[in-house]
Amino acid sequence: MLTFQDTLEILNREIQAIQHPKTPAGLYEPIAYLLALKGKKLRPAFTLLACNLYLEEVDAAIHPALAWEIFHNFTLMHDDLMDKAELRRGQPTVHKKWNENTAILSGDAMLILSYIFMAKSPAEHLKPLLDLFSGTASEICKGQQYDMEFERRTDVSEREYIEMIRLKTAVMLGACLRSGAMIGGADKTDGQNLYDFGIHLGIAFQIKDDLLDVYGNPNVFGKKTGGDILCNKKTYLLINAMNSANATDKAELLRWLACNNQPEEKIVAVRSLYDKLSVPEKADETIRIFYEKALTALQAVSVDENRKKILRNITEELMKREF
Amino acid sequence: MLTFQDTLEILNREIQAIQHPKTPAGLYEPIAYLLALKGKKLRPAFTLLACNLYLEEVDAAIHPALAWEIFHNFTLMHDDLMDKAELRRGQPTVHKKWNENTAILSGDAMLILSYIFMAKSPAEHLKPLLDLFSGTASEICKGQQYDMEFERRTDVSEREYIEMIRLKTAVMLGACLRSGAMIGGADKTDGQNLYDFGIHLGIAFQIKDDLLDVYGNPNVFGKKTGGDILCNKKTYLLINAMNSANATDKAELLRWLACNNQPEEKIVAVRSLYDKLSVPEKADETIRIFYEKALTALQAVSVDENRKKILRNITEELMKREF
Repeated sequence: MLTFQDTLEILNREIQAIQHPKTPAGLYEPIAYLLALKGKKLRPAFTLLACNLYLEEVDAAIHPALAWEIFHNFTLMHDDLMDKAELRRGQPTVHKKWNENTAILSGDAMLILSYIFMAKSPAEHLKPLLDLFSGTASEICKGQQYDMEFERRTDVSEREYIEMIRLKTAVMLGACLRSGAMIGGADKTDGQNLYDFGIHLGIAFQIKDDLLDVYGNPNVFGKKTGGDILCNKKTYLLINAMNSANATDKAELLRWLACNNQPEEKIVAVRSLYDKLSVPEKADETIRIFYEKALTALQAVSVDENRKKILRNITEELMKREF
Repeated sequence: MLTFQDTLEILNREIQAIQHPKTPAGLYEPIAYLLALKGKKLRPAFTLLACNLYLEEVDAAIHPALAWEIFHNFTLMHDDLMDKAELRRGQPTVHKKWNENTAILSGDAMLILSYIFMAKSPAEHLKPLLDLFSGTASEICKGQQYDMEFERRTDVSEREYIEMIRLKTAVMLGACLRSGAMIGGADKTDGQNLYDFGIHLGIAFQIKDDLLDVYGNPNVFGKKTGGDILCNKKTYLLINAMNSANATDKAELLRWLACNNQPEEKIVAVRSLYDKLSVPEKADETIRIFYEKALTALQAVSVDENRKKILRNITEELMKREF
C-alpha cells in the first residue's frame, strides 16, 4: 500500500523523466520550467492513490496521473496570463519571464501534451478516461470564465460562487480520483463516491484557501495575507460580506473596494468588517459542511477502512492547515 | 462516390448541428461565431474524401473530420491573437470583437472540443487516430513558434522556411487525409502516400498564397495585394529576395522594410525588387516542384484512378487559382 510520500516520489521521478523536445526551445522551455516548480502534486497523487485502493500495482495509472498534472499546469499558465499574475509558486509566471505569446502557445502545446499522456492509458479504459478528461477540462474552462465574469459583478450569490469553484477547482480533484478508480477496476458506485469525495473536498479546500489568504498565519502561510483583499478578488469572504452587510457596512465595504492607495489600511478595514459580520465563522461552518460531505462520500466507498485511511489523513491535513 | 460539393454539404450541416452550451455565453459564443464564418473546409473535406477512396459510406469519418475543422479554427483564434490580426474571413477576429482573455479561453475550450469530437472516432481506430491528431497538433504549435521567431530574424533560409510551413500548414492537410484513409481501411503504404500528397500540396499551397498576396488579381483575390509586404511578413518571396540579392539590392530591401509611412510606394518598390530578382519565377518553379511531388504521391495510392480523380481535380484547382 502506497504512502503519500511514495506517490510523490513516483510522480517527481516520472515528471523529471519526461523528454521535452530540444527545439524550438522557445516553445518547450516554458513547459519544463513550469513543471519543475515545486507544487503540491495533490491531483496526480489522488489518481495513484485511488487506483491503489483496488490494485497494489499502480503503474497503469501513472500516465493518466501525469496527464492531470500537465493539464493542471496548462491551466496555471493560461490563467496566470488572463489574471495578469506575476508570481507562481514564488517564481515569475511564464508570460512575465518570457512574454504573452509564449504563455499562449506553450500553454496550447502543454494542453496537447496532457492528451498525449492520457492517450497512453490502458486501451480498455481509453474511451471512458478521455470522456472524463475532456468533460472535466471543459468544466474547468467554464469555471475560469465565471471567475473572470464575477470580477466585474457585485451581485454574485454564495450559490453561484460555490458553483464556480466546483467547476474551476473541485471537478478536477473528483475526476483525478475517479480516473484512478477506473483503472483500478472500481465499480461505478465507488467511482461516483470517490468523485463526490473529491468535489466536496475541493470546495472545502478552496474556501479554506480564501480564509487563509485573510486570516492565515503569515509565518506558516509563506506569503503575506491580504492579497485577495488588495486586488478585490471575489472570494467566499467578500461575497458573504456583501450579501450579509447592512446598508452602512456595505457602503463602507464598497468604499474600500474602490480604494487603491492605502494597502495596509484597506486590509485592516476589510478584515474588521469581515469580523464584525462574522464572515470567518460562516466560512468555517461552510468548510465544515463540505468536509463532512466529503468524509461521508469516502465512507461509502466499498473498500477496507484501512486502505481508505490515507485519503482520510490527507483530507484532515488539508483542513487543519494554517497555510 | 462523393463530389467535393457533397462533402461540403455534409460538413456544413454537421457543423450547424453542433450543440454549443448556452452558458456561459462569453465562453461559447466566440466558438460558434468563428465556426460559422465561411471557410474553405478543405481539411475536413480531405478526411471524408480520403475515407471515400475506400468506403462508399463515410459516416464513421464525420466526427474526426469535424475534429480537424474545430482544431483548425482553434489555431486561427489563437494565432490571430498572437499575430494581432484584426480580420479573419472579412470579419473581426475574436480578440477584437470580444477581448484577449476571451480569445485565450474560448480557444482552449475549442481545442478541448476538437478532442471531444476525435474521441467519437470508431473504437478500433481511436488510439492511432489520437496519436496522429496529437502528434500533428504538436507539430502545428512548433510551426507557429518558428513563424513567430522568423519575424525577428533576417537570416532565414529557404529550407528553414519550407520546414516552417510544412509544420504550420502542410502536416495538417496530410494528417486529415491519413485519418480518413485509416477509417476507410487503407493499408499503411496508402496512408503514407496520401499523407505525403497532403504535405507536398500544403507546401505548394502556402507558397502560392505568398505569391498571390503580392501578384494576385485583387478583383479575384478578394483582398488588396501587398498586405504581407506592408507588415514585413517573412514569406517565401521576401526570404528568397533577401538570400539572392546583391549588396545594393539588399540594402534597398532593408530600407523599405524599415519604412512604415509610405505604404503604396513600399508595395511598388518591393514588388519591383522581387521582379528584378526573378523571385516570382523562382516561387513558381518551387510551387511546380511540390505540385509534381504531390501528384506523384497521389499516383502511388493503390486505388482506381477514377476514385482519385476528385483529389487530382482539387489539387489542380488550388494550383490554378488567381485568388
